[in-house]
Amino acid sequence: MKGKYRRMRNERLRFFLWLLSTPPRSVFSVMLGVFQTRQKLRTSPRLLSRAGLPPVDLQVQLLLRGRCPQSATFSRELHLGPGGSASSPAAAPQRLPFSRVTVEDLTFFRKTLPGRAITDPDLVQSSNEDWLKSVRGSSEVLLRPQTTQEVSQILSYCQSRNLAVNPQGGNTGLVGGSVPVYDEIILSTSLMNNILSFDKISGILTCQAGCVLENLSLYLEERDYIMPLDLGAKGSCQIGGNVATNAGGLRLLRYGSLRGTVLGLEVVLADGQVLDCLSTLRKDNTGYDLKQLFIGSEGTLGVITAVSILCPQKPKSVNVVFLGCETFDQLLKSFQLCKGMLGEILSAFEFLDSECMRLLNTHLKLANPISDCPFYIVIETSGSDSDHDSQKLHNFLEEAMTSLLVTDGTVATEESKIKMLWSMRERVTEALTHDGFTYKYDISLPVERIYQLVTDMRQHLGERARSVVGYGHVGDGNLHLNITSSAKDPALLASIEPFVYEWTAKFQGSISAEHGLGLKKRNYIYYSKSRPTVAVMGKMKMLLDPKGILNPYKTLPDDLK
Amino acid sequence: MKGKYRRMRNERLRFFLWLLSTPPRSVFSVMLGVFQTRQKLRTSPRLLSRAGLPPVDLQVQLLLRGRCPQSATFSRELHLGPGGSASSPAAAPQRLPFSRVTVEDLTFFRKTLPGRAITDPDLVQSSNEDWLKSVRGSSEVLLRPQTTQEVSQILSYCQSRNLAVNPQGGNTGLVGGSVPVYDEIILSTSLMNNILSFDKISGILTCQAGCVLENLSLYLEERDYIMPLDLGAKGSCQIGGNVATNAGGLRLLRYGSLRGTVLGLEVVLADGQVLDCLSTLRKDNTGYDLKQLFIGSEGTLGVITAVSILCPQKPKSVNVVFLGCETFDQLLKSFQLCKGMLGEILSAFEFLDSECMRLLNTHLKLANPISDCPFYIVIETSGSDSDHDSQKLHNFLEEAMTSLLVTDGTVATEESKIKMLWSMRERVTEALTHDGFTYKYDISLPVERIYQLVTDMRQHLGERARSVVGYGHVGDGNLHLNITSSAKDPALLASIEPFVYEWTAKFQGSISAEHGLGLKKRNYIYYSKSRPTVAVMGKMKMLLDPKGILNPYKTLPDDLK
Repeated sequence: MKGKYRRMRNERLRFFLWLLSTPPRSVFSVMLGVFQTRQKLRTSPRLLSRAGLPPVDLQVQLLLRGRCPQSATFSRELHLGPGGSASSPAAAPQRLPFSRVTVEDLTFFRKTLPGRAITDPDLVQSSNEDWLKSVRGSSEVLLRPQTTQEVSQILSYCQSRNLAVNPQGGNTGLVGGSVPVYDEIILSTSLMNNILSFDKISGILTCQAGCVLENLSLYLEERDYIMPLDLGAKGSCQIGGNVATNAGGLRLLRYGSLRGTVLGLEVVLADGQVLDCLSTLRKDNTGYDLKQLFIGSEGTLGVITAVSILCPQKPKSVNVVFLGCETFDQLLKSFQLCKGMLGEILSAFEFLDSECMRLLNTHLKLANPISDCPFYIVIETSGSDSDHDSQKLHNFLEEAMTSLLVTDGTVATEESKIKMLWSMRERVTEALTHDGFTYKYDISLPVERIYQLVTDMRQHLGERARSVVGYGHVGDGNLHLNITSSAKDPALLASIEPFVYEWTAKFQGSISAEHGLGLKKRNYIYYSKSRPTVAVMGKMKMLLDPKGILNPYKTLPDDLK
Repeated sequence: MKGKYRRMRNERLRFFLWLLSTPPRSVFSVMLGVFQTRQKLRTSPRLLSRAGLPPVDLQVQLLLRGRCPQSATFSRELHLGPGGSASSPAAAPQRLPFSRVTVEDLTFFRKTLPGRAITDPDLVQSSNEDWLKSVRGSSEVLLRPQTTQEVSQILSYCQSRNLAVNPQGGNTGLVGGSVPVYDEIILSTSLMNNILSFDKISGILTCQAGCVLENLSLYLEERDYIMPLDLGAKGSCQIGGNVATNAGGLRLLRYGSLRGTVLGLEVVLADGQVLDCLSTLRKDNTGYDLKQLFIGSEGTLGVITAVSILCPQKPKSVNVVFLGCETFDQLLKSFQLCKGMLGEILSAFEFLDSECMRLLNTHLKLANPISDCPFYIVIETSGSDSDHDSQKLHNFLEEAMTSLLVTDGTVATEESKIKMLWSMRERVTEALTHDGFTYKYDISLPVERIYQLVTDMRQHLGERARSVVGYGHVGDGNLHLNITSSAKDPALLASIEPFVYEWTAKFQGSISAEHGLGLKKRNYIYYSKSRPTVAVMGKMKMLLDPKGILNPYKTLPDDLK
């Protein structure tokens, strides 16, 4: 192994010397071999990994082995948090006094949705469980409306009958927000999957809420556009659910959040009233922007039935590079330099630490493609001209290396090496699962703080943890902090929490960067939001859903009820 | 003139032939002379014009001459809309039964804000009038808090006393939203002008609401960043007011709306409660995003006291080009091509029609820099590499001309010509005012419709109007429709309205693209928003400001009260 590393270091040294001596532009694209492709790599494992998730296969294996923290057994106790104690803030509260579904109710549903009011337990079962199989409800009714009008009729009826409703999209959520907690009626948007319009000039797409993200992406790519968001779960997740959870994903650094790209929504309120905010305008300052309330409210304020969204043109060129840094401060300086020199073409700036690399080496036998460094960066560019993008990348690398921000780096020339480079980032989660029981945190912090949490946690836990590793999206200030131990360890958990939440709160971070609060994190909200703010949220809920029938037990803390 | 045009056409033909025969990149930047500059042109007239406003000097002249539609006389009738009839939906409603300021109230204010509770009529006067001098209130108290705590104390007191409050930033609004209608206490944020923090790595700025936009821009430019918005009024407008009105401005096409770039707000509610949503995170999914409610609510739901905003890096190169098209369809196709080929560097795509050009020729003696065309385009690019930007522009021009989307075009080689090119766009408003009394509309529409409104209006009005012209921001789907007549003409106005609003509503447009509703347009809201939506807005108002003391008579229609 040592010999291999020495050879690689020599290669890197030659690369570095060449970089300093070669005039810009000349033979750059051939010599450096910057990866150019007409289409962005979209392999599922990478996307899953970048979303902080293990590959699907692995999830299944882990469940079978009982090693996945969320797997445990399939019972009501599944509602408990990772700590597993009944007093955990993540545990499900008592069932609220909603009505129970009667024969008359079923008659109404069957009449309203002929053939689409499902009560067969086998068919309802998969909608009762989240895709991680970490939480499970006991609903006996799955409704599958096709139109906004049907959603309106159902909610109007449910409110009048005080029946709780669990709106459900692709059921790919990670915080127990997408499945019933008890016997809430499941209102699935899966059959609301029509594209309503696409304006090729403005790039504005309007569609029903149940359109699967990947289907929308394919539709748009044929028209030379892309969706402004991309997720590991894109094959299942639906745009309505994406909007309802304010999904972040892989393109946020470049195209911004859904709060900017979603131009309009159609929403059905708890009383069945249809709120038509389905604007397709980039500018509209006529009154309050009510649609924003529903973005990220996890189905607790209304059911999103249609979405209009501004889509960017498909980039013609994508480049990837893997670099090493001595300190996190240098990594941050590299990010700053990168923003300046790659500017408008920068589309990803990801990092992993040396502990991640150790786990990749140890558990997956992945060799470090560059010399050992405390920190590693994966940079992706997306632009409209491949020559220009290569040139910008060259200039950036030259500057980063000359100023010693980056001590080593490599770019891919062959597809196999390209995949290998990406796997160093995407397979960290997989490597972690081989290291033992994993405690996972998805934290958003001011970017200059994100690694300090890892360092502090490492110091705080000392020998109690097997590994404490950090990786994530530098560009978004989003850290994936992972802590492993040989087995599930309540004492270790007690050392991690509330330390991790208090640390995050101290630096005005978010305890849920992109996954939402759902059932599991609802009671941790005060770590990121002030009491007056949460109180106003409660008033909003009361205003729009006075009986609280929409997705109960989610998002808002129990003490508001 | 004809000879001049012939010479210009020949020049353009040579340019076109050269473009077809010249290999890309070679001597492009010298031969084409695409304008490169390290700093964006920031001349006030241009910015004013692009915001749909005449230059400040001109406004003053117009007021002196009494030719500005909003000038009229300085009386309560100023609250009337352009139609000037008491029954106009733009007219001020009856005063609501708020308390009147007493000596005890003044004692409280003076104690709370020593030396900053202004009652001198001369000093209060300028805050009673909007900058267009189109509306004027009769407030006798101007409060100038310096801290959030002071704002909280004032509002808490005012709510308990049922005193109405008019929150005021730079008072540069265009719809009568920034000044009192009657005797509302003016709460100015002008002394809340501290920058609280700036993160050079993430580009996140946090500041008090009263910071003047231009001061923030200067502060950031020294640090190699820019504000994500830029307005003609930047020398006076304040960031709090920008956010409260969801200001659009010149950079929206590139950097998106404030809904995406504003990361956090601190807001004081009507009861004095401080709502701390001053996050500085790009990602935060912990509960409802309450700050969005206050963006664009024109001070009717709370007083914004601090803002955190994500700022882009300063572009290193800016290019400008002026083109001609035969049809609006070709113009739209050019826009589409432009988006694809200029991609990430496109920062402005503006247009004017031949009627605008005629007015520029006739009234301002500005010669057309290219051959006569029905439509003209101004394109601006902003990027991080001037060579690359020039090359992209070359490729785009070549393609646009080869495919006959663009029939003529010119780029500037000298600064004087550059200014001349820009003046063709920026001086349209000025030219209009020389054409007669002007009826102005700021409409947002699906981009493929924006010129159809001009054509239809022209046909609808026939000989009754002197000129019907269209120009605006194609990139944002934002049309400035202007209609002139020899003098103020109620019959003509009756032909324009509600035709223009009905037409806009028919195509799901917005009757206020970026100026808000304020006092003047509050009752037109139903042209762009459904009744259920407006009803929910009313409930939000009732929830957050139950006594309605915050900026009464604004934004929401009278029938909600």
